[in-house]
Amino acid sequence: MTVTIISSPTREVRIGFDEPFVIIGERINPTGRKILAEEMKNGDYSRVQADALAQVEAGAHMLDVNAGIPLADEPRILAEVIQLVQSITNVPLCIDSSIIAALEAGLAVYQGRALVNSVTGEDESLERVLPLVARYGASVVAISNDETGISQDINVRYNVAKKIVERAADHGISRDRVVVDPLVMPIGAINDSGRQVMALVRRLREELKVNTTCGASNVSFGLPNRNGINSAFLTMAIGAGMTSAITSPLHAEVMQAVLGADVMMGHDPNCANWIRKYREPAPEGEGGAREGRENRRRRRA
Amino acid sequence: MTVTIISSPTREVRIGFDEPFVIIGERINPTGRKILAEEMKNGDYSRVQADALAQVEAGAHMLDVNAGIPLADEPRILAEVIQLVQSITNVPLCIDSSIIAALEAGLAVYQGRALVNSVTGEDESLERVLPLVARYGASVVAISNDETGISQDINVRYNVAKKIVERAADHGISRDRVVVDPLVMPIGAINDSGRQVMALVRRLREELKVNTTCGASNVSFGLPNRNGINSAFLTMAIGAGMTSAITSPLHAEVMQAVLGADVMMGHDPNCANWIRKYREPAPEGEGGAREGRENRRRRRA
Repeated sequence: MTVTIISSPTREVRIGFDEPFVIIGERINPTGRKILAEEMKNGDYSRVQADALAQVEAGAHMLDVNAGIPLADEPRILAEVIQLVQSITNVPLCIDSSIIAALEAGLAVYQGRALVNSVTGEDESLERVLPLVARYGASVVAISNDETGISQDINVRYNVAKKIVERAADHGISRDRVVVDPLVMPIGAINDSGRQVMALVRRLREELKVNTTCGASNVSFGLPNRNGINSAFLTMAIGAGMTSAITSPLHAEVMQAVLGADVMMGHDPNCANWIRKYREPAPEGEGGAREGRENRRRRRA
Repeated sequence: MTVTIISSPTREVRIGFDEPFVIIGERINPTGRKILAEEMKNGDYSRVQADALAQVEAGAHMLDVNAGIPLADEPRILAEVIQLVQSITNVPLCIDSSIIAALEAGLAVYQGRALVNSVTGEDESLERVLPLVARYGASVVAISNDETGISQDINVRYNVAKKIVERAADHGISRDRVVVDPLVMPIGAINDSGRQVMALVRRLREELKVNTTCGASNVSFGLPNRNGINSAFLTMAIGAGMTSAITSPLHAEVMQAVLGADVMMGHDPNCANWIRKYREPAPEGEGGAREGRENRRRRRA
């Protein structure tokens, strides 16, 4: 049983085959969010703070933190944001940057064992990211593409993941510290991408014996009712063996899909989480709000 | 590729590994519906008629028809209901009874090739149901229990299914005419039942090469937010290879889960069904209702 442990000073998150699915909140990311980017660049982290609290409140087990803003001092901003988020929440973080200096600045201030997002199968990435991951005792998201791009052949993607796991081992990073992202293509453009990912996740789990993650919302790019597609994707991917995802916990529908999938996988003992979250309100007479809800239901029936 | 073909005079439904998931509407069933049972017993089929039309409108590909009312003349009622439903819709039917005489009366009046629901692994059931299925060129739902009851060991359930497929072959019924129900236990009582079913469905598909169906809503018995659990179950089961289910198409959430799973499996070419069902309304100015919806959205944003 492969278990990846990510920690903050007071909390440990276990990503694993026999664990509830881990939701890594995706919101602290200025990509495509103009106002947030501008604010972060100017040192105004009020929105970051609100996003952090809202995601944890909504059920995120970890938070992804990205400060990729063009022409900004990314290492400094990323380090500041990490310190801020760690001062207001206790969930472990995923440090997300394509710039090595930013990853290093983030790891230097991070308290606990972080998840580094990410390394690819490209030699330059392997040579620069893996020593950092090793030095800080972190874990790493391994993206299954390399110099040749993203292959549509899942055997090629599997082999890239295998290569990353082997290179990590050379740096003393065991396979339980490598969380593979099989890469999810928009299904509106590539109709076969769902089946591709399910088959790849299954192989990564059964043969390579690694945990997996992904940017879940990519699958629905360009389609209407994206939460519906994201929910179907996550439920099916969890059935295939996926163990975590970087996504938004703020969509009730997506969270419900994940909690339902936990029930299906036997990862919610006695369905306790499900029942706590969705149980019917108590019979009327116990409180005004509940009574109102009962009445509304009766009118509908 | 195993394909089960069920037909009415004007429509053919294909249940298969490379086909969209088939929804068999469960509503025409007096079990647990006192008023409906009383009406059906008295020859009042107005509610049956409404249920048939509503389910087809909601997207059912087939309808299950059951007339199991204590102390009533089930063969006569079942035959009458089948004739009625075939006169108002063109979807193929699943003839559902535990009484052989009722199955026979239903098959005698049915126009097309029906799905008979069901045969079990019990010798008496095999000997009485299979000749009927053979005589009418029908297909049959095979429930994976026998004289010893429902085993919690999926190997036993697999072997019961295998035995039914073999016995069916002795009657000239090929395996593509046997749709196996792996039996779904309430997950609130048996936490492992989701994993059990997924593993069994996969084996039934990969080794026995048969289509599968199930009474999907059983899985959520006793839990709150049953549609949420049913949606998670169906999505994950489709990912494991399930090809049809007897369930209610009247729950928008459950239908969305099935349509989303079809997209994931690559069974909705160009996501055409998904887009048709969920596309955003046209820009404002093209009609009052649409404009109103646009405005509401803008207010929310």
